[in-house]
Amino acid sequence: MNYQRFFEEAIDQIHAERRYRVFADLERIVGSFPQAIWRNNGEKREITVWCSNDYLGMGQHEDVIRAFQEAAGKMGSGAGGTRNISGNNHPLVELEHELADLHGKESGLVFTSGFISNEASISTIARLLPNCLILSDELNHASMIEGVRRSGAEKKIFRHNDVAHLESLLQAAGRERAKLIVFESVYSMDGDIAPIKEIADLAEKYNAMTYIDEVHAVGMYGPRGGGITDREGLAHRIDIIEGTLAKAFGTLGGYITGKTAIIDAVRSYAPGFIFTTALPPAIAAAATTSIRHLKNSQAERDAQQRQAARTKEVLASVGLPVMPSATHIVPILVGDPELCKMATDRLLGVHGIYIQPINYPTVPRGTERLRITPTPFHNDALIDVLKDALVETWNALGIPYRTEGQTSVAESERIVSLLVPKSGG
Amino acid sequence: MNYQRFFEEAIDQIHAERRYRVFADLERIVGSFPQAIWRNNGEKREITVWCSNDYLGMGQHEDVIRAFQEAAGKMGSGAGGTRNISGNNHPLVELEHELADLHGKESGLVFTSGFISNEASISTIARLLPNCLILSDELNHASMIEGVRRSGAEKKIFRHNDVAHLESLLQAAGRERAKLIVFESVYSMDGDIAPIKEIADLAEKYNAMTYIDEVHAVGMYGPRGGGITDREGLAHRIDIIEGTLAKAFGTLGGYITGKTAIIDAVRSYAPGFIFTTALPPAIAAAATTSIRHLKNSQAERDAQQRQAARTKEVLASVGLPVMPSATHIVPILVGDPELCKMATDRLLGVHGIYIQPINYPTVPRGTERLRITPTPFHNDALIDVLKDALVETWNALGIPYRTEGQTSVAESERIVSLLVPKSGG
Repeated sequence: MNYQRFFEEAIDQIHAERRYRVFADLERIVGSFPQAIWRNNGEKREITVWCSNDYLGMGQHEDVIRAFQEAAGKMGSGAGGTRNISGNNHPLVELEHELADLHGKESGLVFTSGFISNEASISTIARLLPNCLILSDELNHASMIEGVRRSGAEKKIFRHNDVAHLESLLQAAGRERAKLIVFESVYSMDGDIAPIKEIADLAEKYNAMTYIDEVHAVGMYGPRGGGITDREGLAHRIDIIEGTLAKAFGTLGGYITGKTAIIDAVRSYAPGFIFTTALPPAIAAAATTSIRHLKNSQAERDAQQRQAARTKEVLASVGLPVMPSATHIVPILVGDPELCKMATDRLLGVHGIYIQPINYPTVPRGTERLRITPTPFHNDALIDVLKDALVETWNALGIPYRTEGQTSVAESERIVSLLVPKSGG
Repeated sequence: MNYQRFFEEAIDQIHAERRYRVFADLERIVGSFPQAIWRNNGEKREITVWCSNDYLGMGQHEDVIRAFQEAAGKMGSGAGGTRNISGNNHPLVELEHELADLHGKESGLVFTSGFISNEASISTIARLLPNCLILSDELNHASMIEGVRRSGAEKKIFRHNDVAHLESLLQAAGRERAKLIVFESVYSMDGDIAPIKEIADLAEKYNAMTYIDEVHAVGMYGPRGGGITDREGLAHRIDIIEGTLAKAFGTLGGYITGKTAIIDAVRSYAPGFIFTTALPPAIAAAATTSIRHLKNSQAERDAQQRQAARTKEVLASVGLPVMPSATHIVPILVGDPELCKMATDRLLGVHGIYIQPINYPTVPRGTERLRITPTPFHNDALIDVLKDALVETWNALGIPYRTEGQTSVAESERIVSLLVPKSGG
């Protein structure tokens, strides 16, 4: 075994499949979001970021940054330990109360990432429940899939957002068996929304637990920013609501909320929670500030929806293949991995517009796309610049514009049905 | 299935086993480390923390806090995306160069926690290598055990720090089979050190890869703070050096360093790395500042060693059962879980001294202990206060003082050999 050669070949293989990732070296500019400095080959250049998950720009909000800086000044740059061994800082305790309140739940529990919150929570809950059957949407995020795998529990995958399929699986399992339904509210690569009420109805009918991932919705939907379950008045009908502090709330970390007994069980049994250093007080204080602001302010949500709608409209008006999306996520179909990469390289190099290409396996082959996330700070002028840049790029590279079938809802549903269960990253 | 009752019973069981954890609600005070405000039943009280893993107090270092605050002011409170999708901030790129340099390696890769860095790296490396055999020290940390499990690879556990046992396992596997030896430099519950040179010799002899966890050593050992491998000039003989930014460096996150091909493979294949938001620029900038400071300053390391030695000496001088430790970690044997919990409750309630009890399963039954971590800021006066408080507590609760056998090196080795493979948390 020649280890060095082996790993070199593993990397060569990724190159050969055109999946080798080069990370853009970025420095965002507070006060000028979505602008950032891009470093490339020793040069620095100001560019516009169109693919950030800091969806509302809260990462540059002055109250959030002030809370961040003040907590660091008072309590330091780290937590200094696990939650159990000296790391349980007061801002983190406050944050968990804030999160429980946000979702109308008894308790909250914070993790160092959304990935870990899904992996640790799903695996722990399903492992604790005797003979648990997990029912998992086929498009669930990688972190949820890891949680399902790690649980060791039996799993059944239901077709994306297909409640009839879910019901048939629930029925087959019977009322008595422990069951956990795992799904997302907003699916991040297409921007579509789960039939939450129907799933909650089924869970009640067949006595199943429900676990929803709201990471692409918290802060952005509902009168208090509690996500789609908040908007639709359904939070009380879902057992565990999982979310992130690293997207619309502009900081870092993930969390779950639910009844105290469940949260306490995860807190007490999940290795990925127990054996890890707590989030620093500054992150917790900033997150709490962000959540409180968005509980009381509708302005950011309105502006995001307005700019997202306008982006879809302006791009569609020139025939760009905007894929249907019920949310703030704006996918543009390219349909070829090489073209997709070339398009984003050209957008960045020629136009100073940064959009990461989304290729297989994140989305299925043939549905390669640009995934655009307009924030309240992507104003109308920036949208026009984006449109012109996309048109120039589409023309230069010969990427197909919209055809009748391509962006119809029917076609979109066909595309969605092909998707492999991987997203993000 | 009554889910609510089921989870309540799961919690009741932990209570019944006296393993229910109540997290102390703490607010550390920058400029006054190791002092902190403790909130309990609506009251606030200033206490002394004696169990932090902010081992050198770098979390309150003014340069570190300044870097933290400045980066947040310039770049915001979060990264805004995964490493691949807009989250790759410039301070994080710099941090990875700094870490590679710290350990004399080609490349570095940062994760959001040390737990994830171990879990993702070990599982990815061992999964990629065909028919890999993992050789794992029996006292490895929970995060390494999770990585071993997740890899799906065959594993053999070798007796703690037992190179003869390790050799017999390597020999049985043969030179041709892919092998990964996974171990720690400093074991955190006993403070003992691995025979790194002997393990590196065996790895060479039998053509195995080596993976060392230096989380309880980086910053604190070696002329540049590169850990025990730095102190002993052995870094170049270990394939992957894993470390943390959340202990001696005073911030958050974990990392690996090694040859570019290996690091790039983990970067490209590990879901726990790919599908997670990047560390915020402020955390990265603070960590880089901390690492650079400790590369050039020996003062913190010297002060820590001095105060740790003094703590051991002062406590031993009054007959307290200080367990042998080759490092800055000072374990005091209690030997009973109830007494251990009562002792720490009394220390906190009566004396304002916070030390978390370490009980089963973190350490084996019968070796329950207090784990004390003196920093440069635990001065001689604080050590004397600690001694008096421990004596009062030992007397009040009737905890055994040192007996001849109990703290001898031989006895310690017997105790160590009983340890179950769990630590931390």
